Amino acid sequence: MDQRIYDHAEVLVDWSARVEEGDNVVVRVDEGAHDLAVAVAEKLGERGANYLTTYVSDEVQSAFVRSHDGDFDQDPDFETEMLERADSVLSLRAKRNTAAKAAIPGEKRSAYRKSRSGIREVRMDSDWVSTIHPTRALAQQAGMDYREYQDFVYDAVLRDWEALADQMANMKDLLDEGSEVRIVKEDTDLTMSIEGRTAVNSAASVAYDSHNLPSGEVFTAPENPEGEVYFDVPMTHNGERIQGVHLTFEEGAVVDWSAETGEQALTDILETDEGAKRLGELGIGMNRGINRFTDSILFDEKMGDTIHLAVGRAYSSCLPEGEEGNESAVHVDMITDMSDDSRMEIDGEVVQRNGTFRWEDGFEE
Amino acid sequence: MDQRIYDHAEVLVDWSARVEEGDNVVVRVDEGAHDLAVAVAEKLGERGANYLTTYVSDEVQSAFVRSHDGDFDQDPDFETEMLERADSVLSLRAKRNTAAKAAIPGEKRSAYRKSRSGIREVRMDSDWVSTIHPTRALAQQAGMDYREYQDFVYDAVLRDWEALADQMANMKDLLDEGSEVRIVKEDTDLTMSIEGRTAVNSAASVAYDSHNLPSGEVFTAPENPEGEVYFDVPMTHNGERIQGVHLTFEEGAVVDWSAETGEQALTDILETDEGAKRLGELGIGMNRGINRFTDSILFDEKMGDTIHLAVGRAYSSCLPEGEEGNESAVHVDMITDMSDDSRMEIDGEVVQRNGTFRWEDGFEE
Repeated sequence: MDQRIYDHAEVLVDWSARVEEGDNVVVRVDEGAHDLAVAVAEKLGERGANYLTTYVSDEVQSAFVRSHDGDFDQDPDFETEMLERADSVLSLRAKRNTAAKAAIPGEKRSAYRKSRSGIREVRMDSDWVSTIHPTRALAQQAGMDYREYQDFVYDAVLRDWEALADQMANMKDLLDEGSEVRIVKEDTDLTMSIEGRTAVNSAASVAYDSHNLPSGEVFTAPENPEGEVYFDVPMTHNGERIQGVHLTFEEGAVVDWSAETGEQALTDILETDEGAKRLGELGIGMNRGINRFTDSILFDEKMGDTIHLAVGRAYSSCLPEGEEGNESAVHVDMITDMSDDSRMEIDGEVVQRNGTFRWEDGFEE
Repeated sequence: MDQRIYDHAEVLVDWSARVEEGDNVVVRVDEGAHDLAVAVAEKLGERGANYLTTYVSDEVQSAFVRSHDGDFDQDPDFETEMLERADSVLSLRAKRNTAAKAAIPGEKRSAYRKSRSGIREVRMDSDWVSTIHPTRALAQQAGMDYREYQDFVYDAVLRDWEALADQMANMKDLLDEGSEVRIVKEDTDLTMSIEGRTAVNSAASVAYDSHNLPSGEVFTAPENPEGEVYFDVPMTHNGERIQGVHLTFEEGAVVDWSAETGEQALTDILETDEGAKRLGELGIGMNRGINRFTDSILFDEKMGDTIHLAVGRAYSSCLPEGEEGNESAVHVDMITDMSDDSRMEIDGEVVQRNGTFRWEDGFEE
């Protein structure tokens, strides 16, 4: 097996999940994740943990849900009781066909999902981590050949996470202490308040309350944006490509918008509800192992030298105790490249210029 | 997918496991069992059961056990608690490499097995069923090409089980009511007592306390064999081929033995302990879908028109309450063909002659 699979397993078990001797570890093995499961099992054996592998197959699930009458039992106890006794739940995502659930009618899909809400909650209460094992289906979705996609995934996953977490801690400190963020680039001059908000250092480890591998972003919950912003990185929302989005904010809400591609889809998002025109997230992508757009938000929003803003719902982890933050049925991330002719300021001080942070060599004030 | 896979799933769920609405069903999916898992999930959905798929991989297990220090936690509770809440546990056996555990040192293998004895017990307390999904590795072990092996497996599995169970009930009644069995064929004239013993109708259904699919045998626990018997169907024991076994019994124990192939291996079996020279089982193979030897005891001993005798341990289910039956560290089945020039008598009455039972057309008294 590719040595990188063993390296991936080591990052997952040691850095991300912090597995210790005697831990009960549920390993959720997707259809295409066999090789990573073998490497993870080896690492779990070394750590003296206990493992239980479940099989996560979209084809199996689709067959079950489609043939069921739709009146699903709520949170069957054999699954909740297992998960309640799990210290960690590791999801090895590796679809063999990203469209495998396409034939499930929407109503049944939603009923099945609802019937498992308690199971999801119990899983989220564990030290859960979700990661990606490269498959041909995922390469296809990213528009890459398989070997190129493997390189892409491992470049993103096999970072010096400790060093990256330290870098990201710099950014978190700046955001926590700052009051106002300004982003300036082509067609963009946007300010927003971050006063009193707490940034999350998403360093791909449960120790940082960060549950995806790869990760590599620092995010917070801004408010009162004013000005304009242009998003040059494309995105897919509900199957619709949206590209070249331009938003104008006045008094904290979007008042004017356009898109070079998918303007109707953009309009649908923004008109979902009142909160959909306000900001839910400001994220700084700092994983330079991710250097290209692949139409997977798990990777795209972590891309080095990008900034993303989400319209819609804010994460409570960024808000002062008791504050609700922006509420909306949506949370849609839009990404802009910050590597050229661009800067980010906090309280008037430049913290990133042309893709270089102020604590890095070559930074120009 | 091959229609036979769906048919197999239906037999497994409905006939074998008797799954009902609301049942919690654990489906243990071997590395090569994906397609059968899909068909089983469809059937479980139709029945309104709940499913949880676990991934059973010899490669994963080998990686874990080999890298572990060998001091395994006893029966981790996340697995026992799951199984305790399972109504049925369906094992879809489909190895991709029957030698995948070869690199595990014997001591660790045994320590790991011991650490899971409670888990096995809980599983055995459920309505468990174990079945085979054909893979190339299993075809290879059987010495067949893949398509031929698929035909072989489905011929064995896709029986009219209700009709076969009725046939086998005839045999069970004869054995339960009878006192002495006699088997006569080339180099064979053996009598044994079955007085007071209860035969098991192994009809591949939990309703018959029969947990393997395919099955198709009626077995009991004989004692006091006298005479000689020749086994013409080969077998493999601990990796050694044994063929053409001839045993002579006096006063209930083997006093003389020979084998055309593997005589030393036969001697090792018989000299294991005192009980290894006595009989533990008489089984009547009645699954005519199995018409050839494949070196897999799950199939071989059920072969239509064969009889097998096991030296060693007797099954308690055949014994009167409180009786211990023959005890031994071994239980080794040996098979003889009853399709030609042969007969089986119970209390002097012929019940099978040249492969035809007394309740069948063409039977000659």
